[in-house]
Amino acid sequence: MNKMEAELTTLCYIEKDGKYLMLHRTKKENDPSRDLWLGIGGHFEHGESPEECMLREVKEESGLSLTAWKLRGIVTFSDGDWFEYMFLYSADGFTGEMTECTEGELVWVEKDKVINDLPIWEGDRIFLRLMDDGEPFFSLRLKYENRKLVYAAKDGIEIRR
Amino acid sequence: MNKMEAELTTLCYIEKDGKYLMLHRTKKENDPSRDLWLGIGGHFEHGESPEECMLREVKEESGLSLTAWKLRGIVTFSDGDWFEYMFLYSADGFTGEMTECTEGELVWVEKDKVINDLPIWEGDRIFLRLMDDGEPFFSLRLKYENRKLVYAAKDGIEIRR
Repeated sequence: MNKMEAELTTLCYIEKDGKYLMLHRTKKENDPSRDLWLGIGGHFEHGESPEECMLREVKEESGLSLTAWKLRGIVTFSDGDWFEYMFLYSADGFTGEMTECTEGELVWVEKDKVINDLPIWEGDRIFLRLMDDGEPFFSLRLKYENRKLVYAAKDGIEIRR
Repeated sequence: MNKMEAELTTLCYIEKDGKYLMLHRTKKENDPSRDLWLGIGGHFEHGESPEECMLREVKEESGLSLTAWKLRGIVTFSDGDWFEYMFLYSADGFTGEMTECTEGELVWVEKDKVINDLPIWEGDRIFLRLMDDGEPFFSLRLKYENRKLVYAAKDGIEIRR
C-alpha cells in the first residue's frame, strides 16, 4: 500500500438571494489565506467522506445545517512541493441560525462582487466563474509558484486566461 | 496545515463493444485484491491531479492512451482504520496497442458478466451498476469491516441493498 501526505479539503459556497456566504479570513494566525475571502470549508478528519467533511465544516464554522448541496468539482492545487485536493461544493438550502466563526467574519456578498472585485486567490476566480456559468462537474488543476498562479487546466486541458 | 496519511487512487473502466477491459489480479504479492477482477488504476504519485494519475496508470498497465474519458464518481472506502479515496472513471476512446500487465491478466469481459458474475469486491458491484444506469456524478461511501461490506451511501444517503 502506498500512502502519501496529502491535504484533503472541502470548500462550500452557500448561496442565497444572489449572494454567497463568504468568510473573510482575518482571525487565524499563520493562515495562508489570511485577509483573503473564501467560502466555508476545511480539512478532512480521518476517514470522512467528502460530504461528511463538508457538512461538518459548514456546521462548525457557520452554525448552518445544509439541506441542499452539490459537488461541483475537484481542484488539485500545488505550490512547489505542497499540494492539496479540494472538493468544491455549492449549496442553496440550509436551516439553523448563523453563528460567529473563529477563523474570520462571515458576510453575505453579491456573487458578481465575489467573482470580480473581492481579494480572493487568483485560481478561485476561475472556479467561481465555472460555477457561475453552470459548468458540469469539472476537475481543475491549479499550479501556483510562490502563491502566484502559473498554470490552470480543466479536465486535463490547459485554460488560457 | 493539517496533513493526513491518505491513500488516493484512480480506477478506470475502459469500454469497447459492450465489454470492459478487466484486470484479473493474479500476479502481485500481498495484493489485497488478489484473484479479484478490477478495472485499471493505481495510486497517485506526488502532486498528480486525478486525471494525470488515471491516464498514467492506464498507459503503464495496459499500453493504451485514452482519448475519451469521464470522471463518474468519487468513492470513499474504509475498513477499520484504513481508508482510501478513489476517483472512478469510464473511458470509451483510446489509441495504441495493448501490452502485458505486471499485476495480472488483461481481459475484455462482457459488462453484464462483470457486474453480475465475476468475483469482484461487493462494493464495486454498486458503483458498476450506478455507472451502467448512467447515474450522474456521485460520491459513494463504502464501509467495510474485515473485507465485508457493512454500509453504503450515495451522496450522503444510505443505500439499502
